[in-house]
Amino acid sequence: MTLITALAGGVGASKLLTGLTKHVKQEDLTIIVNTGDDIELNGLHVSPDLDTIIYTLAGVVDEAKGWGIQGDTFYFLEALRRFVEETWFAVGDRDLATHVFRTALLKQGKTLSEVSAAVSRAFGVGARVLPMTDDYFQTRIVTERGVVHFQEYLVKWQARDGVLGVEFVGVDLAKPAVGVLEAVQDAELVVLCPSNPVVSIGTILSINCVRDALRRSSARKVAVSPIIAGVPVRGPAGKLLAGLGLEVSAYSVAKLYADFLDVFVIDVADSAEKARIEELGVNVKVTNTVMRTLEDKVSLAKVVLES
Amino acid sequence: MTLITALAGGVGASKLLTGLTKHVKQEDLTIIVNTGDDIELNGLHVSPDLDTIIYTLAGVVDEAKGWGIQGDTFYFLEALRRFVEETWFAVGDRDLATHVFRTALLKQGKTLSEVSAAVSRAFGVGARVLPMTDDYFQTRIVTERGVVHFQEYLVKWQARDGVLGVEFVGVDLAKPAVGVLEAVQDAELVVLCPSNPVVSIGTILSINCVRDALRRSSARKVAVSPIIAGVPVRGPAGKLLAGLGLEVSAYSVAKLYADFLDVFVIDVADSAEKARIEELGVNVKVTNTVMRTLEDKVSLAKVVLES
Repeated sequence: MTLITALAGGVGASKLLTGLTKHVKQEDLTIIVNTGDDIELNGLHVSPDLDTIIYTLAGVVDEAKGWGIQGDTFYFLEALRRFVEETWFAVGDRDLATHVFRTALLKQGKTLSEVSAAVSRAFGVGARVLPMTDDYFQTRIVTERGVVHFQEYLVKWQARDGVLGVEFVGVDLAKPAVGVLEAVQDAELVVLCPSNPVVSIGTILSINCVRDALRRSSARKVAVSPIIAGVPVRGPAGKLLAGLGLEVSAYSVAKLYADFLDVFVIDVADSAEKARIEELGVNVKVTNTVMRTLEDKVSLAKVVLES
Repeated sequence: MTLITALAGGVGASKLLTGLTKHVKQEDLTIIVNTGDDIELNGLHVSPDLDTIIYTLAGVVDEAKGWGIQGDTFYFLEALRRFVEETWFAVGDRDLATHVFRTALLKQGKTLSEVSAAVSRAFGVGARVLPMTDDYFQTRIVTERGVVHFQEYLVKWQARDGVLGVEFVGVDLAKPAVGVLEAVQDAELVVLCPSNPVVSIGTILSINCVRDALRRSSARKVAVSPIIAGVPVRGPAGKLLAGLGLEVSAYSVAKLYADFLDVFVIDVADSAEKARIEELGVNVKVTNTVMRTLEDKVSLAKVVLES
């Protein structure tokens, strides 16, 4: 019965978490989730990563897409096109219930933590799913065409433009949500999921005191590389790292976590990186990190748990 | 080309309006709609009567139910049951787009009038659909079990309880929406639809200056009785009139409008009422007022136009 705390973005993280829950009880798992992608769309507060994690743990996620609810329909979205031009963010009819509920609770003065707990409960999720912060935090991407919300860059622009920089709006004032620092301190194992190191894990690490808590925690800290052979498993991590002047490699990600990391799990395709990463003072485990099947997820989770 | 202004509630009104639009262009029609039924549900501003009128004029209304959008699905509502116990108000997935759009615009500071114009435009409605007021106004029903919002009484409680009284919360401060008084003054014909005389037409008449404008307007004012042979065509008008100590009859409704009304259209079943109503100084027209088919609607509208 190991107490585990995971730092997570959306889809990449959800795969490893699926694997972890085959080894440990959800009740022993706390997940700190990126909220930099949160966005208000047509007056509704949408938390893409929190939803992906909760839907995954509830077993209702659309596995093919990695997000949204399995078998969802899109009649609302179709009808909305009558009113608004911008319907680039696909909200399903069932998924929408979560956004409406969340927005109503926030309007009543509830915190995002309280909302996440209520949504988790409603979906019968046993793990504790915490937003990284209850405060305003927005990830913006700087491109030649201007500065846009991360979701706009990712979904509407399909991450086509080169990245000139990343802005974390609100980072100076954002406090960790209640339970976040405790979850890092009290854990026996902290897992950094194979999520985007800049806009998913990077945002969580940017929250006041979180990085310090990781450095001080006696937990074993294990990260899984989201980059295999110089290519991100999915998403725009490549453009983001390059845009920040960083090398697109497992090594480069390890460097971002080196000040607190114990073990970095890299893919067999990157075994040549092992020595270079170990020079950072980080132990390296080499295994298959591509998660296509449930078996892949379970195996990788086992490696993480045994690291 | 007669300029017509109609005072309307929801379903009863929509039938007559359907008939009217077969004789006159929508562009010559202004409809002042009750907003006393408006309600915030799960943080969304719902305007039941405005929607019924707009959906009807757009030709997308669910004719069997009289409200909502034809062929709509209810996946959102089903999913919402996971979160909230109270899902007595049936919101369809396509219908929901209207509520989300409206709520977002109101949140941006737009008035309900502006929203109604935008919704009408989006649905290609040519008639001008005005809320009776842009201000807060809520119809509450007093019963032995307590005081509840009209929609709660009607939909959740199925109008089972006896009515002890009716409260118009906000009536002292509510101003007519922009265009309402002008529409009454400038019209050649003002039609009071066969809607509930207390909670649909009564609310409109209760708004400051509206009744005065009706008295002063040189328009011909014609009302259609919502009560046939002592029974409301639909809805809780019987319980409401009785609860206010009024007789449940066409005569009783005529009395509520007598100070400004020119012609009252009653059903053949009520021809015996004719003399009594004429004593109120109101002309009476007797015809078939039951609107089951499109032909019924068109015929009744013709009678109204020729009154």
